[in-house]
Amino acid sequence: MSSNNVASFNEARRVAIFGGTHGNEMSGVTLVNLWMMNSREEIQRKGVETQPFITNPKAVEKCSRYVDTDLNRAFTTENLSAPHGKDLPYEVQRAQEINRLFGPKGSSEAYDVIFDLHNTTSNMGCTLILESSKDHFNLQMMNYIKKAIAPDSCPVLLNEDPGLKYATARSVAKHSVGLEVGPQPQGVLRSNIFEAMRIILKHALDFIELFNEGVEFPPCTVDVFKVSERMDYPRDSNGNIIAMVHPNLQDCDWEPLTPGDPMFQTFDGKTIPYEGAGAVYPTFINEAAYYEKQQAFVTTRRETLAANAIRKV
Amino acid sequence: MSSNNVASFNEARRVAIFGGTHGNEMSGVTLVNLWMMNSREEIQRKGVETQPFITNPKAVEKCSRYVDTDLNRAFTTENLSAPHGKDLPYEVQRAQEINRLFGPKGSSEAYDVIFDLHNTTSNMGCTLILESSKDHFNLQMMNYIKKAIAPDSCPVLLNEDPGLKYATARSVAKHSVGLEVGPQPQGVLRSNIFEAMRIILKHALDFIELFNEGVEFPPCTVDVFKVSERMDYPRDSNGNIIAMVHPNLQDCDWEPLTPGDPMFQTFDGKTIPYEGAGAVYPTFINEAAYYEKQQAFVTTRRETLAANAIRKV
Ligand SMILES: [Zn+2]
Ligand SMILES: [Zn+2]
Repeated sequence: MSSNNVASFNEARRVAIFGGTHGNEMSGVTLVNLWMMNSREEIQRKGVETQPFITNPKAVEKCSRYVDTDLNRAFTTENLSAPHGKDLPYEVQRAQEINRLFGPKGSSEAYDVIFDLHNTTSNMGCTLILESSKDHFNLQMMNYIKKAIAPDSCPVLLNEDPGLKYATARSVAKHSVGLEVGPQPQGVLRSNIFEAMRIILKHALDFIELFNEGVEFPPCTVDVFKVSERMDYPRDSNGNIIAMVHPNLQDCDWEPLTPGDPMFQTFDGKTIPYEGAGAVYPTFINEAAYYEKQQAFVTTRRETLAANAIRKV
Repeated sequence: MSSNNVASFNEARRVAIFGGTHGNEMSGVTLVNLWMMNSREEIQRKGVETQPFITNPKAVEKCSRYVDTDLNRAFTTENLSAPHGKDLPYEVQRAQEINRLFGPKGSSEAYDVIFDLHNTTSNMGCTLILESSKDHFNLQMMNYIKKAIAPDSCPVLLNEDPGLKYATARSVAKHSVGLEVGPQPQGVLRSNIFEAMRIILKHALDFIELFNEGVEFPPCTVDVFKVSERMDYPRDSNGNIIAMVHPNLQDCDWEPLTPGDPMFQTFDGKTIPYEGAGAVYPTFINEAAYYEKQQAFVTTRRETLAANAIRKV
């Protein structure tokens, strides 16, 4: 795929935009519905076939994250190869269907790019989520978007640790891009979050059009936050949460947390400090959907990735 | 009940604090669970029997607003007098049970005071909700709380219009007080919102203790926001929402909205202004739970209520 440090990729002709992978994350649900109904030209680009798609319509209908199980954890080899049947959880059936339509995952017939649109209750701004530090096409896209939206920023979260990553809906594509925009409560549509997501998509599609037209992108570097560790809430011996995210940490996604800094506040007013070995950059701080996953936030560490030049084959 | 402009009330010996009337509003759920388990002394007052109570345990278990129907709309005469049966919606059965435990509604055996703890995704701060402008006991309590928390503020929302008010869980008591604190996403516990709610409850219970001890409260006035009108999102002919709360209005609960001010923003970027006859004070702006009730916000108008002096019988 690479020669003289220039990585070559086929044109990215088949692109999908997923909304409603979590049915109560309203920016993606609303944008995808809008694009499916009457504003298709907004996502059309020369030489690109862009497919807006509601991934979990039953969850969207109920305005809940999921019906039976988290769709964005359901794209495991085991699920995708399970014998088809009505007794499977709804989201597993749906994962198989999405895999047929946009995959099969890992095959040459899979879609070129899938964008998956999410919202978070955390103060994460416009976060791009990468699943591989080796995907030079995606790294070039992140670099393009970051430059296009400057002086606004969009942090890149790299989640490639096999012990921490999960089987996402977007992982069906050759190049998968998660977009996580917040803060926005579940079930709410905020205009600022909606417009921020829309602008990121615009630049991402512009990048694909330029690439397909033959533009060569020179080598670059991309600063990322690499997922390091999941942190749970403090609990008593019965598993009940006994503390909240400390007010000094709440809403401070991407800011350094250094040993000794306040991390949690117990219900009786005691501060629990961070006691790690060095500075980390927390994110997904106090995300509503992660209480059930026993996660108060994740820590990340900063890294700079090198991207090769890319051009089309 | 009143003589020489002094209203007399019996001591308020039986007080309940409801949490989890909506199962995904975490401040009340957490406070009530805390008080039930091991911090009862925090809500104990001399001469007052305070009962913390989870009103909708099944919804709390699911971390959803309700299971079958909104419990905080279920305390109608029709529901409370319906023949008991397992085929009734869960929340109607639960309303009957709560009415037996803390009512019967409208009877002399009913609890003296019920506080019902709610959260909102709207930027409403600590809002006290009154269901009657004639309840001098409650008006005096609001006045006491407002003075106690100054310079912080707590707006009082008056909802007594028969066409707009609804059959709340707290309406079972002789004096019902709603507490609505935000902004906080559903399913999230924020330390600032948690502590703000806790402080209001502290002052409310202090007031009851003082009243029971025989303190006479002199006449006073209470500034309130009286619910005026429900405003829905703009919709197309199929009923689909076509606009969002305008960024100039979002998070501006309690601030004046005057004719011509931006109110909504359509998905294609057009501004829809407010076209009422005069200034109103919107609140419950972009509350997650009110999308299904077809309500983008409510308008209110400012009024000053006069409260008689009160003392115990
Ligand atoms: Zn999501
Ligand atoms: Zn509520």
